[in-house]
Amino acid sequence: MGNPPNNVNSPAQEQLYLGIDGGGTKCRARIISASGRMLGTGVGGPANPLHGVQQTLISIQTATERALVDAGLPVTSCNQLIAGIGLAGVNLPSLFDVINQWKHPFQQMHLTTDLHIACLGAHKGAEGAVIVAGTGSCGYSYVDGKATVLGAHGFPFGDIGSGAWMGLEAIKAVLLASDDLGPRTLLSELIGEHLQAKGVMIVDKMAGAKSSDYAQLAIFVLDAADRDDAVALAIVKQGADYLSAVAERLWETKPARMSLLGGLAQRLIPWMSPAMVERLSAPLNQPEFGAVYFAQQSNDALETA
Amino acid sequence: MGNPPNNVNSPAQEQLYLGIDGGGTKCRARIISASGRMLGTGVGGPANPLHGVQQTLISIQTATERALVDAGLPVTSCNQLIAGIGLAGVNLPSLFDVINQWKHPFQQMHLTTDLHIACLGAHKGAEGAVIVAGTGSCGYSYVDGKATVLGAHGFPFGDIGSGAWMGLEAIKAVLLASDDLGPRTLLSELIGEHLQAKGVMIVDKMAGAKSSDYAQLAIFVLDAADRDDAVALAIVKQGADYLSAVAERLWETKPARMSLLGGLAQRLIPWMSPAMVERLSAPLNQPEFGAVYFAQQSNDALETA
Repeated sequence: MGNPPNNVNSPAQEQLYLGIDGGGTKCRARIISASGRMLGTGVGGPANPLHGVQQTLISIQTATERALVDAGLPVTSCNQLIAGIGLAGVNLPSLFDVINQWKHPFQQMHLTTDLHIACLGAHKGAEGAVIVAGTGSCGYSYVDGKATVLGAHGFPFGDIGSGAWMGLEAIKAVLLASDDLGPRTLLSELIGEHLQAKGVMIVDKMAGAKSSDYAQLAIFVLDAADRDDAVALAIVKQGADYLSAVAERLWETKPARMSLLGGLAQRLIPWMSPAMVERLSAPLNQPEFGAVYFAQQSNDALETA
Repeated sequence: MGNPPNNVNSPAQEQLYLGIDGGGTKCRARIISASGRMLGTGVGGPANPLHGVQQTLISIQTATERALVDAGLPVTSCNQLIAGIGLAGVNLPSLFDVINQWKHPFQQMHLTTDLHIACLGAHKGAEGAVIVAGTGSCGYSYVDGKATVLGAHGFPFGDIGSGAWMGLEAIKAVLLASDDLGPRTLLSELIGEHLQAKGVMIVDKMAGAKSSDYAQLAIFVLDAADRDDAVALAIVKQGADYLSAVAERLWETKPARMSLLGGLAQRLIPWMSPAMVERLSAPLNQPEFGAVYFAQQSNDALETA
């Protein structure tokens, strides 16, 4: 839990905080001073330890160094940062432990999930709840210091209502239709055109596809649903119903605020329960800010202890 | 299409045929004489070109060499074999072409799908239809020289009614139940015990799982269905209904016989439409024999041409 402090308490210098938001495609870093000045930002490569622990640690370091450079600080001042790090994948205890045992280069490192920092960001450091609908999907609430996670199970067995799930359901429907064993759907045309393939050739195109590849097909499902395609409507409604059910469960934990986040949030809102949508609040800040709030709160807790 | 013949027409020697059945976990070879004597068998490693073309070619060679040794023949007599090769994956034209361009070591090589040789085997070289329910699922008929393929799309977007599909549906149901967002099911207990995990730890265990890993869970779905578990019943019935619909479509091609093949065949029969089951015939021979029939028929066609 942190290296010994290193000339950080010199009166001339404010404590610096680092916020890291690491996910499957990239890692964002943000450096903020104790008084709240935004000093620098940086981006690194993929940082989901489920897909590679070493890559994750490299991406965190790259993003941090770029943020330090952006802030006009020497890269060696890494050891003056109190880091809050939110990562996908560390809801799995085995991965949390691996990352938490890292001989990190920071003054302190405080590790939590990407969901926790997204939630702290959305509510400006306060407790609350979030529903995420992007490449993946999940629900999260943090109330009275207790985290509740719904979903976040990942592709291909979880993440109903997410982009990857919608894309997978769409491919299943298109393949069934191509065999005349499922209803005809506009998706055959839209996805066939996008992939430049039909029937069994779609299998060829999607062999070995990752969740992010499937997620790119979600837009066609939403478009076809807007055009009243029955198959697409069934997929979108199942997804939206699941996310509405997640919201209902999250409200049981009595959060002060709840926000819907992620790339599909806006497109899904029309399909969700209006009573549920009515109660949602706008997200106030990005996850990297949430990571900084987490670093500050964790440090405050250490100092109080 | 084949190397020049190599002392195979000496009066003392009958033409030798090689039958290869290649799939995702292993590759079976069988050497048979023109008069039908079974001379030797051999097994090699995985031979699904979708998961590796080089590995497939190595597995075919290993299985062939072992069959030659088993037959008491020198490994160098490989070039006297007329090979019939049935492989998973080569229903994709790109993979068919790659394998078909192989500088193979045989006298002739005749390539087709694993489904075609399974069908020829089941009907002793005659035309007909098969439904396969094992790790994957599909329907196939070969009537009047015309092949009809239903399904065979692969994991995770196809193969309804297969072991891998049942396993994936089971994991989805168990994860939903663990969030209290789906009905309780006996599968949580059965699969939890098998994986020694529950809730989010199941995600940990199944991360990166292959179709064969999911297929190992199918037995629990079938067991829970036998014990009237509503979630398992819904999965098994959806799978059996799909396979019954596949059978119905295959009968439209007017095959003389139809057989149900694969590791799950016996367990699925009680759940399928009784009228459909009534019309099924027992499979007469293994796919490797089908590969030999295919080699003989292809060679006869060449000689007639």
